[in-house]
Amino acid sequence: MIPRDWRPRYLQLAEELRAQIVSGKLVQGAAMPSETELAESSGLSRTSVRNAIRQLREWGLVRAEQGRGTYVRAPRQRIRRHNTERYQWEKDRALLDEGQRRKTGGTEHDTGLTVDDLKFHAEYAQVPADDDMANAFDLPTGTLLLRRLYWTSSRHESAPLSVSYSYLPYDLVAANPELLDAENEPWPGGTQHQLFTVGVELARIVDEVRARPPSPDEAELLDIEPGVSVLALRKTSIDITDRVVEVADIVFPGDRTELVYTTDLKRWTT
Amino acid sequence: MIPRDWRPRYLQLAEELRAQIVSGKLVQGAAMPSETELAESSGLSRTSVRNAIRQLREWGLVRAEQGRGTYVRAPRQRIRRHNTERYQWEKDRALLDEGQRRKTGGTEHDTGLTVDDLKFHAEYAQVPADDDMANAFDLPTGTLLLRRLYWTSSRHESAPLSVSYSYLPYDLVAANPELLDAENEPWPGGTQHQLFTVGVELARIVDEVRARPPSPDEAELLDIEPGVSVLALRKTSIDITDRVVEVADIVFPGDRTELVYTTDLKRWTT
Repeated sequence: MIPRDWRPRYLQLAEELRAQIVSGKLVQGAAMPSETELAESSGLSRTSVRNAIRQLREWGLVRAEQGRGTYVRAPRQRIRRHNTERYQWEKDRALLDEGQRRKTGGTEHDTGLTVDDLKFHAEYAQVPADDDMANAFDLPTGTLLLRRLYWTSSRHESAPLSVSYSYLPYDLVAANPELLDAENEPWPGGTQHQLFTVGVELARIVDEVRARPPSPDEAELLDIEPGVSVLALRKTSIDITDRVVEVADIVFPGDRTELVYTTDLKRWTT
Repeated sequence: MIPRDWRPRYLQLAEELRAQIVSGKLVQGAAMPSETELAESSGLSRTSVRNAIRQLREWGLVRAEQGRGTYVRAPRQRIRRHNTERYQWEKDRALLDEGQRRKTGGTEHDTGLTVDDLKFHAEYAQVPADDDMANAFDLPTGTLLLRRLYWTSSRHESAPLSVSYSYLPYDLVAANPELLDAENEPWPGGTQHQLFTVGVELARIVDEVRARPPSPDEAELLDIEPGVSVLALRKTSIDITDRVVEVADIVFPGDRTELVYTTDLKRWTT
Protein backbone atom coordinates (compact mmCIF):
# COMPACT_ATOMS: atom_id res chain seq x y z
CA MET A 1 0.00 0.00 0.00
CA ILE A 2 1.19 3.49 -0.87
CA PRO A 3 1.86 5.54 2.27
CA ARG A 4 -0.72 8.29 2.79
CA ASP A 5 0.74 9.85 5.91
CA TRP A 6 -1.22 13.08 5.49
CA ARG A 7 -4.57 11.32 5.93
CA PRO A 8 -5.87 10.99 9.49
CA ARG A 9 -5.96 7.40 10.72
CA TYR A 10 -9.74 7.35 11.26
CA LEU A 11 -10.12 8.05 7.54
CA GLN A 12 -7.77 5.22 6.59
CA LEU A 13 -9.86 2.86 8.74
CA ALA A 14 -13.09 4.21 7.23
CA GLU A 15 -11.69 3.58 3.75
CA GLU A 16 -10.71 0.01 4.62
CA LEU A 17 -14.22 -0.64 5.94
CA ARG A 18 -15.73 0.97 2.86
CA ALA A 19 -13.70 -1.36 0.66
CA GLN A 20 -15.04 -4.34 2.66
CA ILE A 21 -18.63 -3.13 2.17
CA VAL A 22 -18.19 -2.41 -1.53
CA SER A 23 -16.52 -5.79 -2.15
CA GLY A 24 -19.30 -7.61 -0.26
CA LYS A 25 -17.00 -8.91 2.49
CA LEU A 26 -19.30 -7.02 4.89
CA VAL A 27 -22.74 -7.87 3.51
CA GLN A 28 -25.89 -5.76 3.35
CA GLY A 29 -27.93 -5.93 6.56
CA ALA A 30 -25.07 -7.40 8.59
CA ALA A 31 -24.04 -5.88 11.92
CA MET A 32 -20.73 -4.00 11.84
CA PRO A 33 -18.00 -5.19 14.24
CA SER A 34 -18.30 -3.40 17.61
CA GLU A 35 -16.11 -0.43 18.54
CA THR A 36 -14.12 -2.66 20.87
CA GLU A 37 -13.48 -5.22 18.11
CA LEU A 38 -12.50 -2.53 15.63
CA ALA A 39 -10.20 -0.82 18.14
CA GLU A 40 -8.47 -4.15 18.78
CA SER A 41 -8.16 -5.24 15.16
CA SER A 42 -6.98 -1.81 13.92
CA GLY A 43 -4.84 -0.77 16.90
CA LEU A 44 -6.56 2.65 16.86
CA SER A 45 -8.15 4.55 19.74
CA ARG A 46 -11.89 4.37 20.47
CA THR A 47 -12.12 8.00 19.33
CA SER A 48 -10.59 7.16 15.94
CA VAL A 49 -12.89 4.13 15.60
CA ARG A 50 -15.92 6.28 16.42
CA ASN A 51 -14.82 8.88 13.85
CA ALA A 52 -14.43 6.13 11.25
CA ILE A 53 -17.98 4.86 11.92
CA ARG A 54 -19.33 8.43 11.76
CA GLN A 55 -17.59 8.77 8.38
CA LEU A 56 -19.28 5.59 7.10
CA ARG A 57 -22.66 6.97 8.23
CA GLU A 58 -22.00 10.21 6.37
CA TRP A 59 -21.11 8.22 3.25
CA GLY A 60 -24.51 6.53 3.61
CA LEU A 61 -22.92 3.08 3.95
CA VAL A 62 -24.06 2.16 7.45
CA ARG A 63 -27.08 2.92 9.59
CA ALA A 64 -26.96 3.38 13.38
CA GLU A 65 -29.91 1.83 15.21
CA GLN A 66 -30.50 3.24 18.67
CA GLY A 67 -29.27 0.79 21.30
CA ARG A 68 -28.77 -2.02 18.76
CA GLY A 69 -25.56 -1.18 16.95
CA THR A 70 -24.53 -0.27 13.45
CA TYR A 71 -25.64 -2.12 10.30
CA VAL A 72 -24.49 -2.17 6.68
CA ARG A 73 -27.07 -0.36 4.52
CA ALA A 74 -28.45 -1.59 1.24
CA PRO A 75 -26.55 0.18 -1.55
CA ARG A 76 -28.51 3.25 -2.66
CA GLN A 77 -29.06 4.63 -6.12
CA ARG A 78 -26.41 7.25 -6.89
CA ILE A 79 -26.96 10.33 -9.05
CA ARG A 80 -24.27 11.90 -11.16
CA ARG A 81 -26.05 14.89 -12.66
CA HIS A 82 -24.06 16.47 -15.46
CA ASN A 83 -25.93 19.76 -15.59
CA THR A 84 -23.94 21.45 -18.38
CA GLU A 85 -24.89 18.68 -20.83
CA ARG A 86 -28.32 17.99 -19.30
CA TYR A 87 -29.70 21.47 -19.90
CA GLN A 88 -28.78 21.54 -23.61
CA TRP A 89 -30.06 17.96 -23.99
CA GLU A 90 -33.40 19.03 -22.47
CA LYS A 91 -33.58 22.02 -24.80
CA ASP A 92 -32.89 19.92 -27.90
CA ARG A 93 -35.48 17.39 -26.79
CA ALA A 94 -38.27 20.00 -26.50
CA LEU A 95 -38.46 20.09 -30.32
CA LEU A 96 -38.88 16.31 -30.73
CA ASP A 97 -42.28 14.74 -31.36
CA GLU A 98 -44.29 13.43 -28.41
CA GLY A 99 -43.39 9.79 -28.94
CA GLN A 100 -39.71 10.56 -28.71
CA ARG A 101 -40.21 12.89 -25.73
CA ARG A 102 -42.12 10.15 -23.87
CA LYS A 103 -39.29 7.67 -24.09
CA THR A 104 -36.95 9.17 -21.50
CA GLY A 105 -36.45 12.08 -19.13
CA GLY A 106 -33.84 13.97 -17.15
CA THR A 107 -33.71 11.57 -14.21
CA GLU A 108 -33.10 8.60 -16.50
CA HIS A 109 -30.31 10.70 -18.05
CA ASP A 110 -28.65 11.15 -14.62
CA THR A 111 -29.07 7.66 -13.21
CA GLY A 112 -28.97 5.23 -16.10
CA LEU A 113 -32.39 3.95 -14.94
CA THR A 114 -35.31 3.50 -17.34
CA VAL A 115 -38.80 5.01 -17.14
CA ASP A 116 -40.05 1.70 -15.71
CA ASP A 117 -37.52 1.83 -12.84
CA LEU A 118 -38.82 5.18 -11.58
CA LYS A 119 -41.76 6.41 -9.54
CA PHE A 120 -42.75 10.01 -10.16
CA HIS A 121 -44.63 12.36 -7.86
CA ALA A 122 -45.96 15.87 -8.64
CA GLU A 123 -48.07 18.32 -6.62
CA TYR A 124 -49.16 21.76 -7.87
CA ALA A 125 -50.23 24.80 -5.82
CA GLN A 126 -50.79 28.50 -6.42
CA VAL A 127 -48.74 30.64 -4.05
CA PRO A 128 -47.96 34.37 -3.77
CA ALA A 129 -44.26 35.21 -4.25
CA ASP A 130 -42.47 35.80 -0.94
CA ASP A 131 -39.61 38.35 -0.86
CA ASP A 132 -37.03 35.76 -1.91
CA MET A 133 -39.00 34.53 -4.95
CA ALA A 134 -40.06 38.08 -5.90
CA ASN A 135 -36.39 39.02 -5.90
CA ALA A 136 -35.41 35.92 -7.91
CA PHE A 137 -38.04 36.69 -10.59
CA ASP A 138 -37.68 40.49 -10.36
CA LEU A 139 -41.47 40.68 -9.83
CA PRO A 140 -43.44 42.38 -7.03
CA THR A 141 -43.83 40.49 -3.74
CA GLY A 142 -47.20 38.75 -3.78
CA THR A 143 -47.21 38.02 -7.54
CA LEU A 144 -49.05 34.75 -8.12
CA LEU A 145 -46.76 31.80 -8.86
CA LEU A 146 -47.42 28.20 -9.82
CA ARG A 147 -45.42 26.07 -7.38
CA ARG A 148 -44.71 22.51 -8.45
CA LEU A 149 -43.31 19.98 -6.00
CA TYR A 150 -41.59 17.03 -7.68
CA TRP A 151 -39.88 13.97 -6.47
CA THR A 152 -38.69 10.90 -8.26
CA SER A 153 -37.59 7.67 -6.65
CA SER A 154 -36.19 4.40 -7.80
CA ARG A 155 -38.78 1.57 -7.63
CA HIS A 156 -36.34 -0.29 -5.41
CA GLU A 157 -36.15 2.45 -2.75
CA SER A 158 -38.71 4.32 -0.69
CA ALA A 159 -36.79 7.61 -0.44
CA PRO A 160 -36.68 9.97 -3.43
CA LEU A 161 -33.48 10.74 -5.35
CA SER A 162 -34.13 14.46 -5.00
CA VAL A 163 -36.89 16.91 -4.08
CA SER A 164 -37.60 19.91 -6.26
CA TYR A 165 -39.77 23.00 -5.78
CA SER A 166 -40.20 24.62 -9.18
CA TYR A 167 -41.83 28.06 -9.49
CA LEU A 168 -43.28 29.65 -12.63
CA PRO A 169 -45.11 32.99 -12.98
CA TYR A 170 -48.77 31.95 -12.97
CA ASP A 171 -49.84 34.38 -15.71
CA LEU A 172 -47.09 33.12 -18.01
CA VAL A 173 -48.16 29.47 -17.90
CA ALA A 174 -51.93 30.09 -17.59
CA ALA A 175 -51.88 30.71 -21.37
CA ASN A 176 -51.88 26.89 -21.64
CA PRO A 177 -54.39 25.49 -19.09
CA GLU A 178 -52.85 22.02 -19.42
CA LEU A 179 -49.79 23.40 -17.62
CA LEU A 180 -51.91 24.09 -14.51
CA ASP A 181 -52.90 20.47 -13.90
CA ALA A 182 -50.53 18.09 -12.06
CA GLU A 183 -52.42 15.18 -13.68
CA ASN A 184 -50.49 15.94 -16.86
CA GLU A 185 -47.21 15.02 -15.12
CA PRO A 186 -44.75 13.58 -15.89
CA TRP A 187 -44.95 15.90 -18.90
CA PRO A 188 -43.09 14.44 -21.89
CA GLY A 189 -40.14 16.73 -22.50
CA GLY A 190 -40.33 18.38 -19.08
CA THR A 191 -40.30 22.06 -18.22
CA GLN A 192 -38.49 23.23 -21.36
CA HIS A 193 -41.25 21.67 -23.48
CA GLN A 194 -43.96 23.06 -21.17
CA LEU A 195 -42.50 26.55 -21.67
CA PHE A 196 -42.26 25.92 -25.43
CA THR A 197 -46.07 25.48 -25.50
CA VAL A 198 -46.46 29.07 -24.25
CA GLY A 199 -43.87 30.47 -26.67
CA VAL A 200 -40.87 30.60 -24.32
CA GLU A 201 -37.33 29.66 -25.39
CA LEU A 202 -34.52 29.51 -22.80
CA ALA A 203 -31.24 31.35 -23.41
CA ARG A 204 -29.33 30.27 -20.31
CA ILE A 205 -29.59 28.57 -16.94
CA VAL A 206 -27.74 29.79 -13.85
CA ASP A 207 -27.08 27.24 -11.08
CA GLU A 208 -26.17 28.38 -7.57
CA VAL A 209 -24.92 25.47 -5.45
CA ARG A 210 -24.77 25.42 -1.65
CA ALA A 211 -24.16 22.76 1.01
CA ARG A 212 -26.12 22.62 4.26
CA PRO A 213 -27.55 20.17 6.75
CA PRO A 214 -31.04 18.91 5.89
CA SER A 215 -34.09 20.37 7.65
CA PRO A 216 -35.84 17.79 9.85
CA ASP A 217 -38.47 17.30 7.10
CA GLU A 218 -35.86 16.82 4.40
CA ALA A 219 -33.93 14.27 6.48
CA GLU A 220 -37.09 12.23 6.90
CA LEU A 221 -38.18 12.53 3.27
CA LEU A 222 -34.75 11.70 1.85
CA ASP A 223 -34.15 8.99 4.52
CA ILE A 224 -30.68 10.21 5.36
CA GLU A 225 -28.72 9.56 8.53
CA PRO A 226 -28.26 12.39 11.04
CA GLY A 227 -25.17 14.32 10.02
CA VAL A 228 -25.48 13.72 6.26
CA SER A 229 -25.44 17.00 4.31
CA VAL A 230 -27.58 18.04 1.36
CA LEU A 231 -26.66 19.80 -1.86
CA ALA A 232 -29.06 22.71 -2.35
CA LEU A 233 -29.27 23.87 -5.95
CA ARG A 234 -31.10 27.01 -7.02
CA LYS A 235 -31.63 26.80 -10.76
CA THR A 236 -32.74 30.00 -12.53
CA SER A 237 -33.91 29.76 -16.15
CA ILE A 238 -33.70 32.90 -18.29
CA ASP A 239 -35.38 33.23 -21.67
CA ILE A 240 -34.12 34.85 -24.87
CA THR A 241 -35.74 38.18 -23.85
CA ASP A 242 -33.66 38.13 -20.63
CA ARG A 243 -36.67 37.38 -18.40
CA VAL A 244 -36.53 34.89 -15.50
CA VAL A 245 -39.17 32.27 -16.37
CA GLU A 246 -38.51 29.50 -13.85
CA VAL A 247 -36.83 29.29 -10.44
CA ALA A 248 -36.31 25.83 -8.95
CA ASP A 249 -34.95 24.90 -5.52
CA ILE A 250 -33.70 21.33 -5.68
CA VAL A 251 -32.36 19.35 -2.73
CA PHE A 252 -30.12 16.30 -3.23
CA PRO A 253 -28.89 13.88 -0.54
CA GLY A 254 -25.15 14.53 -0.10
CA ASP A 255 -24.24 10.89 0.46
CA ARG A 256 -25.08 9.84 -3.12
CA THR A 257 -25.14 12.87 -5.41
CA GLU A 258 -22.53 14.62 -7.54
CA LEU A 259 -23.26 17.68 -9.64
CA VAL A 260 -20.92 17.96 -12.62
CA TYR A 261 -20.17 21.08 -14.66
CA THR A 262 -17.84 21.35 -17.64
CA THR A 263 -16.34 24.69 -18.65
CA ASP A 264 -14.97 24.72 -22.20
CA LEU A 265 -12.21 27.30 -22.57
CA LYS A 266 -11.45 29.38 -25.64
CA ARG A 267 -8.10 28.68 -27.35
CA TRP A 268 -5.23 31.13 -26.83
CA THR A 269 -4.32 30.99 -30.50
CA THR A 270 -6.80 30.49 -33.29
CA MET B 1 -46.53 39.76 5.48
CA ILE B 2 -47.30 37.28 2.75
CA PRO B 3 -48.51 33.96 4.18
CA ARG B 4 -45.96 31.16 3.76
CA ASP B 5 -47.96 28.33 5.24
CA TRP B 6 -45.81 25.64 3.66
CA ARG B 7 -42.72 26.69 5.68
CA PRO B 8 -42.27 25.04 9.06
CA ARG B 9 -42.69 27.45 11.98
CA TYR B 10 -39.14 26.96 13.27
CA LEU B 11 -37.88 28.26 9.93
CA GLN B 12 -40.13 31.30 10.09
CA LEU B 13 -38.74 32.08 13.56
CA ALA B 14 -35.16 31.51 12.33
CA GLU B 15 -35.79 33.93 9.47
CA GLU B 16 -37.17 36.59 11.83
CA LEU B 17 -34.07 36.24 14.02
CA ARG B 18 -31.82 36.35 10.97
CA ALA B 19 -33.46 39.62 9.91
CA GLN B 20 -32.78 41.03 13.40
CA ILE B 21 -29.11 40.04 13.17
CA VAL B 22 -28.66 41.35 9.64
CA SER B 23 -30.37 44.67 10.50
CA GLY B 24 -28.19 45.06 13.62
CA LYS B 25 -31.11 44.88 16.07
CA LEU B 26 -29.30 41.88 17.58
CA VAL B 27 -25.70 43.10 17.63
CA GLN B 28 -22.49 41.17 17.09
CA GLY B 29 -21.22 39.54 20.30
CA ALA B 30 -24.55 39.92 22.10
CA ALA B 31 -26.19 36.98 23.84
CA MET B 32 -29.26 35.62 22.07
CA PRO B 33 -32.52 35.56 24.07
CA SER B 34 -32.88 32.29 26.00
CA GLU B 35 -35.02 29.40 24.76
CA THR B 36 -37.63 30.24 27.39
CA GLU B 37 -37.79 33.87 26.29
CA LEU B 38 -38.02 32.94 22.62
CA ALA B 39 -40.72 30.33 23.32
CA GLU B 40 -42.75 32.94 25.19
CA SER B 41 -42.31 35.76 22.69
CA SER B 42 -42.97 33.57 19.63
CA GLY B 43 -45.66 31.29 21.07
CA LEU B 44 -43.77 28.28 19.65
CA SER B 45 -42.74 25.06 21.41
CA ARG B 46 -39.29 24.58 22.93
CA THR B 47 -38.58 22.06 20.14
CA SER B 48 -39.36 24.64 17.44
CA VAL B 49 -37.23 27.24 19.25
CA ARG B 50 -34.33 24.79 19.48
CA ASN B 51 -34.68 23.97 15.76
CA ALA B 52 -34.64 27.70 14.96
CA ILE B 53 -31.41 28.20 16.96
CA ARG B 54 -29.86 25.16 15.26
CA GLN B 55 -30.77 26.72 11.91
CA LEU B 56 -29.04 29.99 12.88
CA ARG B 57 -25.91 28.01 13.84
CA GLU B 58 -25.96 26.25 10.47
CA TRP B 59 -26.25 29.62 8.74
CA GLY B 60 -23.10 30.66 10.65
CA LEU B 61 -24.95 33.54 12.37
CA VAL B 62 -24.68 32.43 16.00
CA ARG B 63 -22.17 30.47 18.02
CA ALA B 64 -23.09 28.14 20.91
CA GLU B 65 -20.73 28.32 23.87
CA GLN B 66 -20.85 25.29 26.12
CA GLY B 67 -22.77 26.10 29.31
CA ARG B 68 -22.85 29.84 28.56
CA GLY B 69 -25.53 30.28 25.91
CA THR B 70 -25.70 31.38 22.30
CA TYR B 71 -24.04 34.50 20.92
CA VAL B 72 -24.35 36.49 17.71
CA ARG B 73 -21.24 35.91 15.56
CA ALA B 74 -19.26 38.56 13.77
CA PRO B 75 -20.39 38.62 10.15
CA ARG B 76 -18.06 36.46 8.05
CA GLN B 77 -16.67 37.02 4.60
CA ARG B 78 -18.90 35.36 2.01
CA ILE B 79 -17.68 33.82 -1.24
CA ARG B 80 -19.72 33.72 -4.40
CA ARG B 81 -17.46 31.84 -6.78
CA HIS B 82 -18.67 32.08 -10.35
CA ASN B 83 -16.61 29.25 -11.77
CA THR B 84 -17.82 29.37 -15.39
CA GLU B 85 -16.51 32.93 -15.76
CA ARG B 86 -13.56 32.54 -13.38
CA TYR B 87 -11.86 29.78 -15.37
CA GLN B 88 -11.94 31.69 -18.66
CA TRP B 89 -10.82 34.86 -16.84
CA GLU B 90 -7.85 32.95 -15.40
CA LYS B 91 -6.97 31.58 -18.83
CA ASP B 92 -7.07 35.03 -20.46
CA ARG B 93 -4.97 36.45 -17.64
CA ALA B 94 -2.15 33.90 -18.14
CA LEU B 95 -1.11 35.78 -21.30
CA LEU B 96 -0.85 39.19 -19.58
CA ASP B 97 2.51 40.66 -18.52
CA GLU B 98 3.70 40.11 -14.97
CA GLY B 99 2.71 43.57 -13.70
CA GLN B 100 -0.87 43.00 -14.73
CA ARG B 101 -0.90 39.43 -13.37
CA ARG B 102 0.37 40.68 -9.98
CA LYS B 103 -2.51 43.08 -9.51
CA THR B 104 -5.25 40.63 -8.68
CA GLY B 105 -6.08 36.94 -8.36
CA GLY B 106 -8.94 34.47 -8.28
CA THR B 107 -9.89 35.01 -4.64
CA GLU B 108 -10.18 38.76 -5.14
CA HIS B 109 -12.40 37.95 -8.14
CA ASP B 110 -14.73 35.90 -5.90
CA THR B 111 -14.87 38.10 -2.82
CA GLY B 112 -14.47 41.69 -3.98
CA LEU B 113 -11.50 41.97 -1.59
CA THR B 114 -8.14 43.42 -2.69
CA VAL B 115 -4.70 41.78 -2.53
CA ASP B 116 -4.03 43.80 0.65
CA ASP B 117 -7.11 42.35 2.39
CA LEU B 118 -5.92 38.77 1.97
CA LYS B 119 -3.45 36.48 3.67
CA PHE B 120 -2.11 33.67 1.52
CA HIS B 121 -0.64 30.36 2.63
CA ALA B 122 1.05 27.69 0.47
CA GLU B 123 2.81 24.41 1.35
CA TYR B 124 4.37 22.07 -1.23
CA ALA B 125 5.14 18.36 -0.88
CA GLN B 126 6.06 15.47 -3.15
CA VAL B 127 3.69 12.52 -2.76
CA PRO B 128 3.10 9.26 -4.63
CA ALA B 129 -0.33 9.03 -6.30
CA ASP B 130 -2.78 6.93 -4.27
CA ASP B 131 -5.42 4.91 -6.16
CA ASP B 132 -7.86 7.81 -6.25
CA MET B 133 -5.34 10.29 -7.69
CA ALA B 134 -3.88 7.69 -10.07
CA ASN B 135 -7.38 7.13 -11.40
CA ALA B 136 -8.08 10.87 -11.67
CA PHE B 137 -4.87 11.43 -13.69
CA ASP B 138 -5.02 8.10 -15.56
CA LEU B 139 -1.46 7.43 -14.37
CA PRO B 140 -0.07 4.38 -12.49
CA THR B 141 -0.54 4.28 -8.70
CA GLY B 142 2.64 5.57 -7.08
CA THR B 143 3.46 8.12 -9.82
CA LEU B 144 5.16 11.10 -8.18
CA LEU B 145 2.91 14.15 -7.78
CA LEU B 146 3.53 17.69 -6.56
CA ARG B 147 0.91 18.38 -3.89
CA ARG B 148 0.23 22.00 -3.08
CA LEU B 149 -1.86 22.98 -0.06
CA TYR B 150 -3.33 26.47 -0.32
CA TRP B 151 -5.48 28.56 1.89
CA THR B 152 -6.42 32.20 1.74
CA SER B 153 -8.04 34.18 4.49
CA SER B 154 -9.37 37.66 4.92
CA ARG B 155 -7.06 39.81 7.12
CA HIS B 156 -10.06 40.40 9.38
CA GLU B 157 -10.66 36.70 10.10
CA SER B 158 -8.51 33.88 11.40
CA ALA B 159 -10.23 31.07 9.46
CA PRO B 160 -9.50 30.59 5.75
CA LEU B 161 -12.14 31.15 3.05
CA SER B 162 -11.34 27.75 1.55
CA VAL B 163 -8.72 25.02 1.67
CA SER B 164 -7.35 23.54 -1.53
CA TYR B 165 -5.16 20.52 -2.24
CA SER B 166 -3.86 20.86 -5.79
CA TYR B 167 -1.99 17.99 -7.46
CA LEU B 168 0.24 18.17 -10.56
CA PRO B 169 2.30 15.38 -12.18
CA TYR B 170 5.81 16.02 -10.81
CA ASP B 171 7.59 15.30 -14.07
CA LEU B 172 5.37 17.73 -15.94
CA VAL B 173 6.15 20.72 -13.73
CA ALA B 174 9.78 19.82 -12.94
CA ALA B 175 10.62 21.24 -16.39
CA ASN B 176 10.44 24.64 -14.65
CA PRO B 177 12.22 24.36 -11.24
CA GLU B 178 10.57 27.58 -10.05
CA LEU B 179 7.28 25.68 -9.97
CA LEU B 180 8.69 23.33 -7.30
CA ASP B 181 9.27 26.06 -4.69
CA ALA B 182 6.41 27.28 -2.46
CA GLU B 183 8.42 30.48 -1.85
CA ASN B 184 7.31 31.59 -5.31
CA GLU B 185 3.67 31.69 -4.15
CA PRO B 186 1.36 33.47 -4.58
CA TRP B 187 2.37 33.03 -8.23
CA PRO B 188 1.14 35.94 -10.35
CA GLY B 189 -1.44 34.50 -12.72
CA GLY B 190 -1.92 31.32 -10.70
CA THR B 191 -1.90 27.73 -11.91
CA GLN B 192 -2.89 28.46 -15.51
CA HIS B 193 0.18 30.72 -15.85
CA GLN B 194 2.38 28.16 -14.03
CA LEU B 195 1.29 25.55 -16.58
CA PHE B 196 1.85 28.03 -19.42
CA THR B 197 5.56 28.21 -18.41
CA VAL B 198 5.87 24.47 -19.14
CA GLY B 199 3.99 24.69 -22.44
CA VAL B 200 0.57 23.55 -21.24
CA GLU B 201 -2.71 25.12 -22.43
CA LEU B 202 -6.01 24.10 -20.84
CA ALA B 203 -8.95 23.06 -23.03
CA ARG B 204 -11.58 22.50 -20.33
CA ILE B 205 -12.19 22.19 -16.62
CA VAL B 206 -14.60 19.66 -15.11
CA ASP B 207 -16.03 20.45 -11.67
CA GLU B 208 -17.63 17.72 -9.55
CA VAL B 209 -19.50 19.18 -6.58
CA ARG B 210 -20.50 17.28 -3.45
CA ALA B 211 -21.87 18.21 -0.01
CA ARG B 212 -20.70 16.52 3.19
CA PRO B 213 -20.00 17.23 6.83
CA PRO B 214 -16.50 18.51 7.56
CA SER B 215 -13.85 16.17 8.93
CA PRO B 216 -12.79 17.12 12.48
CA ASP B 217 -9.64 18.78 11.04
CA GLU B 218 -11.61 20.78 8.48
CA ALA B 219 -14.13 21.98 11.09
CA GLU B 220 -11.27 23.30 13.20
CA LEU B 221 -9.37 24.85 10.29
CA LEU B 222 -12.45 26.52 8.79
CA ASP B 223 -13.79 27.49 12.27
CA ILE B 224 -17.28 26.22 11.54
CA GLU B 225 -19.93 25.25 14.08
CA PRO B 226 -20.76 21.58 14.56
CA GLY B 227 -23.42 20.69 12.04
CA VAL B 228 -22.32 23.10 9.31
CA SER B 229 -21.72 21.33 5.99
CA VAL B 230 -18.92 21.82 3.49
CA LEU B 231 -18.98 22.04 -0.29
CA ALA B 232 -16.35 19.67 -1.66
CA LEU B 233 -15.26 20.53 -5.19
CA ARG B 234 -13.04 18.28 -7.30
CA LYS B 235 -11.70 20.36 -10.16
CA THR B 236 -10.03 18.48 -13.02
CA SER B 237 -8.09 20.48 -15.61
CA ILE B 238 -7.61 18.93 -19.05
CA ASP B 239 -5.21 20.29 -21.64
CA ILE B 240 -5.60 20.63 -25.40
CA THR B 241 -4.04 17.17 -25.91
CA ASP B 242 -6.80 15.67 -23.69
CA ARG B 243 -4.42 14.98 -20.80
CA VAL B 244 -5.35 15.61 -17.15
CA VAL B 245 -2.75 18.13 -15.92
CA GLU B 246 -4.14 19.22 -12.54
CA VAL B 247 -6.55 17.75 -10.01
CA ALA B 248 -7.62 19.95 -7.09
CA ASP B 249 -9.78 19.07 -4.09
CA ILE B 250 -11.19 22.27 -2.65
CA VAL B 251 -13.28 22.52 0.50
CA PHE B 252 -15.53 25.54 1.18
CA PRO B 253 -17.48 26.28 4.37
CA GLY B 254 -21.16 25.74 3.56
CA ASP B 255 -22.41 28.61 5.71
CA ARG B 256 -20.86 31.29 3.49
CA THR B 257 -20.10 29.89 0.04
CA GLU B 258 -22.06 29.67 -3.20
CA LEU B 259 -20.68 28.09 -6.36
CA VAL B 260 -22.27 29.54 -9.49
CA TYR B 261 -22.34 27.99 -12.95
CA THR B 262 -23.93 29.45 -16.08
CA THR B 263 -24.94 27.21 -18.98
CA ASP B 264 -25.48 29.12 -22.22
CA LEU B 265 -27.91 27.28 -24.50
CA LYS B 266 -27.84 27.14 -28.30
CA ARG B 267 -30.74 28.84 -30.09
CA TRP B 268 -33.50 26.66 -31.56
CA THR B 269 -33.53 28.72 -34.74
CA THR B 270 -30.50 30.34 -36.27
